[in-house]
Amino acid sequence: MKTDIQIAQDVKLVHIKEVASKLDIKEDDLEYYGKYKAKLSDELWDKVKDNKDGKLVLVTAINPTPAGEGKTTTTVGLGEALGKLNKKAVIALREPSLGPCFGIKGGAAGGGYAQVVPMEDLNLHFTGDFHAITSANNLLAAMLDNHIHQGNALNIDPNQIVWKRCVDMNDRVLRNIVVGLGRKTDGVVREDHFIITVASEIMAILCLADDMKDLKVRLGRIIVAYTYDGKPVTAKELNGVGAMAALLKDALKPNLIQTIENTPAIIHGGPFANIAHGCNSVRATKTALKLADIVVTEAGFGADLGAEKFFDIKCTSAGLTPDAVVLVATVRALKYNGGVPKTELGGENLEALKIGIANLEKHIENLQKYGVPIIVTLNRFLTDTEAELTYVKDFCEKKGCEFALSEVWEKGGDGGIELAGKVINTLETKESRFTPLYKKELSLKDKIETIAKEIYGAASVTYDPAAETAIKKIEGLGFKEVPVCMAKNQYSLSDDATKLGRPTGFNINIREVYVSAGAGFVVAITGTVMTMPGLPKIPAAEGIDVNNEGIITGLF
Amino acid sequence: MKTDIQIAQDVKLVHIKEVASKLDIKEDDLEYYGKYKAKLSDELWDKVKDNKDGKLVLVTAINPTPAGEGKTTTTVGLGEALGKLNKKAVIALREPSLGPCFGIKGGAAGGGYAQVVPMEDLNLHFTGDFHAITSANNLLAAMLDNHIHQGNALNIDPNQIVWKRCVDMNDRVLRNIVVGLGRKTDGVVREDHFIITVASEIMAILCLADDMKDLKVRLGRIIVAYTYDGKPVTAKELNGVGAMAALLKDALKPNLIQTIENTPAIIHGGPFANIAHGCNSVRATKTALKLADIVVTEAGFGADLGAEKFFDIKCTSAGLTPDAVVLVATVRALKYNGGVPKTELGGENLEALKIGIANLEKHIENLQKYGVPIIVTLNRFLTDTEAELTYVKDFCEKKGCEFALSEVWEKGGDGGIELAGKVINTLETKESRFTPLYKKELSLKDKIETIAKEIYGAASVTYDPAAETAIKKIEGLGFKEVPVCMAKNQYSLSDDATKLGRPTGFNINIREVYVSAGAGFVVAITGTVMTMPGLPKIPAAEGIDVNNEGIITGLF
Repeated sequence: MKTDIQIAQDVKLVHIKEVASKLDIKEDDLEYYGKYKAKLSDELWDKVKDNKDGKLVLVTAINPTPAGEGKTTTTVGLGEALGKLNKKAVIALREPSLGPCFGIKGGAAGGGYAQVVPMEDLNLHFTGDFHAITSANNLLAAMLDNHIHQGNALNIDPNQIVWKRCVDMNDRVLRNIVVGLGRKTDGVVREDHFIITVASEIMAILCLADDMKDLKVRLGRIIVAYTYDGKPVTAKELNGVGAMAALLKDALKPNLIQTIENTPAIIHGGPFANIAHGCNSVRATKTALKLADIVVTEAGFGADLGAEKFFDIKCTSAGLTPDAVVLVATVRALKYNGGVPKTELGGENLEALKIGIANLEKHIENLQKYGVPIIVTLNRFLTDTEAELTYVKDFCEKKGCEFALSEVWEKGGDGGIELAGKVINTLETKESRFTPLYKKELSLKDKIETIAKEIYGAASVTYDPAAETAIKKIEGLGFKEVPVCMAKNQYSLSDDATKLGRPTGFNINIREVYVSAGAGFVVAITGTVMTMPGLPKIPAAEGIDVNNEGIITGLF
Repeated sequence: MKTDIQIAQDVKLVHIKEVASKLDIKEDDLEYYGKYKAKLSDELWDKVKDNKDGKLVLVTAINPTPAGEGKTTTTVGLGEALGKLNKKAVIALREPSLGPCFGIKGGAAGGGYAQVVPMEDLNLHFTGDFHAITSANNLLAAMLDNHIHQGNALNIDPNQIVWKRCVDMNDRVLRNIVVGLGRKTDGVVREDHFIITVASEIMAILCLADDMKDLKVRLGRIIVAYTYDGKPVTAKELNGVGAMAALLKDALKPNLIQTIENTPAIIHGGPFANIAHGCNSVRATKTALKLADIVVTEAGFGADLGAEKFFDIKCTSAGLTPDAVVLVATVRALKYNGGVPKTELGGENLEALKIGIANLEKHIENLQKYGVPIIVTLNRFLTDTEAELTYVKDFCEKKGCEFALSEVWEKGGDGGIELAGKVINTLETKESRFTPLYKKELSLKDKIETIAKEIYGAASVTYDPAAETAIKKIEGLGFKEVPVCMAKNQYSLSDDATKLGRPTGFNINIREVYVSAGAGFVVAITGTVMTMPGLPKIPAAEGIDVNNEGIITGLF
């Protein structure tokens, strides 16, 4: 069987101007990065911004399991299938992070015959957006430490610096460091931390900014530290906004590439789905809506994190109205949720399926709270039996959802025709009555409790003393009417990764709360969140190579 | 008066394919990065590699002074002027480093009407080459620390790690840090250091590599650490070569942009001129020689460092034969060398000029040792008097050099016609008998002493005990027949920055010696070398901005 990279390299890519022409984009509105990648120019936005919006379809999933669900693959395959049904469709996705490609995770560009290409470029430097974010992040850090070193006119307390340096690499030794050692000319000694670039607040800001003007306002609001008397110090006060914005000028423009079947894909931004909102940029989604009749996009992790944030943070902040939501599951993952170990998922097991489907049920009920029509899709595996597939189909239809099987990994767009048909039918016949989960006027605690109880199914919410204090401080600073971005483990609806299915009666404990003032949300952390991954015993990097003709191997 | 960025932004750039067509490059052999930047494809190299080489002209200068010499400006203006004289000419330059743009130094793209453009792109991310180098450098660092954390099968001594992390930012607090703090899962605690990206050995390697095959050989040779029993540990042993090479795949391709007068400029790589060799890539120079009749290139700092390394490291290693050398000076800088303070350089002062010209004299004598014909050029200032200009002209002609005035800053190519004429005449009438300064068979100490005495004019050379030990160890490891890369302050021919003119009778003390095994040279350090700059009291970053139309201001 071919690997993803082999499938990708065997494809005949068309010049990106031909992909663009499917969306009626003229060559002059593209900024090429080689023959197969382009940025969409600011001039293009000016030309299309008064077009009528297309329909917005979110692809989300049940809680991720080691069995694999294939959310990105479904997103890509659905986009390809819509094209085969003669719809003007475009896919909108996040850019993958470089660091994890060298660790365990590998890249992120869909899989099989539902991939975006060139996958090597996408997974390595792509058009440099993440490098620009890294630079802007680290410029602000350097300006901050330089300010203290040069006399500290702003009275910054080195023990209350919240801005962290970043690098797009899995590098565990940078999690906790001491900087500024050496002589007096080498700066002020303090504890510091590196995070991976996708966890930088600048990533979230870039993905929520409407345009350059909004980007600069948001950058200016970033809180980098607090003074000795507890007042916030912003990036604006450090005079760092203009230079950061200059570094981000091109990164703000969405990128266009293609799928294996030459379907247009707009790939832009990639914030973490725990301490940030986990979706591609607002700019990309809005541009896509102006260019196509149907936009297929996705959100990170399962629906409890990804869809909730897509609706309550991204859509609310950007004024977007989703028209349909596709909820991805697999029979194998549902059986895993029903207690079957990963090694035994091959055989028919209706008992386990009936238990595990409670996870899907909860996500359906959650999504119904937003008033958006739902299509459930099962990524079909060879080991799935007819009885299992029928059981899931009947279950979904009883819950009032559309249902479709999908085989896009193996068959590309042809494997997504049934799903695409159901999506088109839903868009044509069912009305979306999108309503966010909570009103912005609620207190931060009420928002947290609404999410925990309504979406996760928690019985109660508790707060560590530090979190209590932080909430009071943040509300006092004027950040009350902003969405809450929950950081929770993605594997369970609860904050305990081992509780599969549909846990009940559990408590959610909020350990830490802080404001991402530039992004415009408050982060509430349950458990621990890893913002700097490490490399495994044998890093994927050891298997990557490039030959004398520039062909890359070993990237997955 | 217009600033450099205003001049640059007022220019009507032509599409890069039109610039390429001047060198007979077809559109299909370009990899566009927007409309005004392109990478030259590997296929282009395959097509032109059997062409006859053009002529290679090096632009170098006297020791830099605060008065300014304008070496890059002269290089660009000379290229423009050669075009006006109907020569098929191309300029080959280094890429500027991002970090210093935010500090004091500003960018590096020439000046006035002798600039390469778009200067904002060039000075910010350009085509991402430096970001790729940063990523490859830091991947190797992460793999190294991960190797130790995962059991340290190679027996690496954490106190003998020589590989450093890097960032393309002026960030003094990263000079001396402690990494790996926290818990057991956060890696091994050790002292570490960040250097600026241009100081990374990977930068030097990229700039000396012939092709992908050679790049991988060089990457594999990098010594990252020593074992507890003193044996070198290489990047190859960490299995990091393939992944680094994959990250550098596109960075290895030279970049094409244009000057203000649409002359082609190949801009590629930018190693430090102290701990590395300070010239654009071999790949860029070789490609330029295949594409044009005359290639104008430059080397970092003054001729004692820049030209020496260009000849003895780059030309020797790559098999290049320079045909002429242009030595840049100004009357102001020569008077400064004669003891006149910067504020009093305006008035005629023949006495000071006669003293200061000793600096120029020594550089002429040095360059003559290489057997390459010399053209001295004075960048003319309004305050220069006829008597001063005539004095320098006569001096140079008596020393057997051609002489030309240059006004390229103010007049672009038109201001370089006289210089270009002299260069053409030299190439047509004088033969280059290029010979490196020393034979590779000499011991490291003999090489160091040859450079110190023959080029700097030192009376003696001494070694710190650590340097003595290092030389023995390095020669023992088999690195005897490699060039020596001297790291010395650039402001004086001696190792004391305050000794202007032509110091004599001084000693050069070698404080530290190490091998850059991948680059293929041994670095000998006199005094201290700053591989991580800091930001000044008011960083240039504070004055940089970008407006809603994407126009950048404040970059200089």
